[in-house]
Amino acid sequence: MRQGRVAYAGSAEALEVTDAYPSRQGQPSRIIGRGEPVVFSETPVGKYSLAGEHLRFYRENGYLLLKGWFTEEATALMQEEFARLLANREIRDLENVICEPGSREIRSLFDLPVLSALYGRLCRSRRVLDAVMQILGGPVYLHQSRINIKPAFWGKSFPWHSDFETWHVEDGFPRMRCLSCSIFLTENNHWNGPLFVIPGSHRHYVSCSGLTPDDHYRESLKNQYYGSPDVKILGKLMDQGAIETCTGGPGDMLIFDGNMMHGSPDNISHLPRTNIFLAYNSCENPPVEPYCGLKRRPAFLASRECTPLVPLDDD
Amino acid sequence: MRQGRVAYAGSAEALEVTDAYPSRQGQPSRIIGRGEPVVFSETPVGKYSLAGEHLRFYRENGYLLLKGWFTEEATALMQEEFARLLANREIRDLENVICEPGSREIRSLFDLPVLSALYGRLCRSRRVLDAVMQILGGPVYLHQSRINIKPAFWGKSFPWHSDFETWHVEDGFPRMRCLSCSIFLTENNHWNGPLFVIPGSHRHYVSCSGLTPDDHYRESLKNQYYGSPDVKILGKLMDQGAIETCTGGPGDMLIFDGNMMHGSPDNISHLPRTNIFLAYNSCENPPVEPYCGLKRRPAFLASRECTPLVPLDDD
Repeated sequence: MRQGRVAYAGSAEALEVTDAYPSRQGQPSRIIGRGEPVVFSETPVGKYSLAGEHLRFYRENGYLLLKGWFTEEATALMQEEFARLLANREIRDLENVICEPGSREIRSLFDLPVLSALYGRLCRSRRVLDAVMQILGGPVYLHQSRINIKPAFWGKSFPWHSDFETWHVEDGFPRMRCLSCSIFLTENNHWNGPLFVIPGSHRHYVSCSGLTPDDHYRESLKNQYYGSPDVKILGKLMDQGAIETCTGGPGDMLIFDGNMMHGSPDNISHLPRTNIFLAYNSCENPPVEPYCGLKRRPAFLASRECTPLVPLDDD
Repeated sequence: MRQGRVAYAGSAEALEVTDAYPSRQGQPSRIIGRGEPVVFSETPVGKYSLAGEHLRFYRENGYLLLKGWFTEEATALMQEEFARLLANREIRDLENVICEPGSREIRSLFDLPVLSALYGRLCRSRRVLDAVMQILGGPVYLHQSRINIKPAFWGKSFPWHSDFETWHVEDGFPRMRCLSCSIFLTENNHWNGPLFVIPGSHRHYVSCSGLTPDDHYRESLKNQYYGSPDVKILGKLMDQGAIETCTGGPGDMLIFDGNMMHGSPDNISHLPRTNIFLAYNSCENPPVEPYCGLKRRPAFLASRECTPLVPLDDD
């Protein structure tokens, strides 16, 4: 097993320990029990903190859909900003702008604060951070931000995966003290390739077989082949928790645990599916060197600026 | 425009007319209005005939889901027969048994009466034929029969298409007097690549651009590239009729018009989706030569034995 430098929750002290969540080290796929809480604090942080019922659902299921979380006005501004970025042909050669395999159509925009001041404010808004800091129990930083476009008719599926598995193996997150917020910019319905989740899967770490190739991220942004769990283990998780579809409309926000198993089918409908994803990590869980032993991923995919975000009052 | 020999509904007389539904003749994609009724007769044919409400729904929407249409016992027999066929490795080299691209896993079984006496009786059972002969207004024959398996995790999507477009262009069906019955052998849920339909699309024939290559069927059974309608026209149909998902359980039967626009996404779930499809054509709509001018498809895909089926009493 490879070694990593781990800072334990609640401690500023860093110490060497063995890899708590080994994966892609040539062993068979298996399940490792979660060693951390899901909700690190119930104490309200601000006016957008979550109520008891919400926190209970999130702890049990690993995700929470907040319907109409953003006002119509705020949602319209986010949509307009997105349209401006899509229309900007100059950004398509940037490293943080990913096009569909075999075309020049934009599939993902990464590192949103660099692309847009509006999205930069969104990442630090109370409406997002109050819930995030409450669940993760303290200061957080933005690990990754992106917009995923799943275009009408041609949008490709995403295979099942846990984000934390990648963040652990490729970015050096020691522990599961991280989550994502997905803000819907379009309808997410049963036909346009919505997010499928396995409720309860966040309590089980699925260690994957195989190894991580060099510069895996270049390929994995378009087609994911590594870090995909064994289908027998997936089948077990699905038998236990079934599958749920996260449907909703513009302005809804989905929060999901970093270790939630999720995937999405292709989009054969006439409506694109476009969502913002903001991934946060606790400042008490700073990344060590990647557990796969390879070099760090670029900063647009995995920031290492662990400075605590200061929430902005958004309205 | 190519010529075809057409027997009009209600007439035994054959006469030469121009192609009423030209497609894949090098013209741009466009919509042609349906020239035939949807329900040819409301007169009950037997004890499994449809009631007024059912017929109205079918006429308006182009499809009808009959929940629990087969008894549990009959469904179990059909499932067991399917398991026997799947386990039979010898049939995998038959022309009418189609494997997944790049593997030896069975994707489709064609010409069911040849493979199984049980399925042969099913194709002629009153429980199927009473409704079919009622809708198509008289004697019918079996144009095509198959089982489609969309395997767990890997099952591929089917792009949008009208079966009639293919049956017209490649098999020489003059008119829209044909339909399919889909009998569910497994759950068809939101996650295992269910059938998507566009209600009302059966009233609009979408003439496709492009041409039909020689021996198109060999490729189209695995990956469909021709006979796929223009996305702008598809988008219009979807805006008018939205999209519906045909979910159901083992023993349900879905009847849908030959010109219903349908497709299905991939299956990333842990449950395979397996359905029987039986396609019937009216004996008053016998096929002429293929309107694409190419040779006929093989009989396992497109029977030309227009002898009226005699219903069997199944219980």
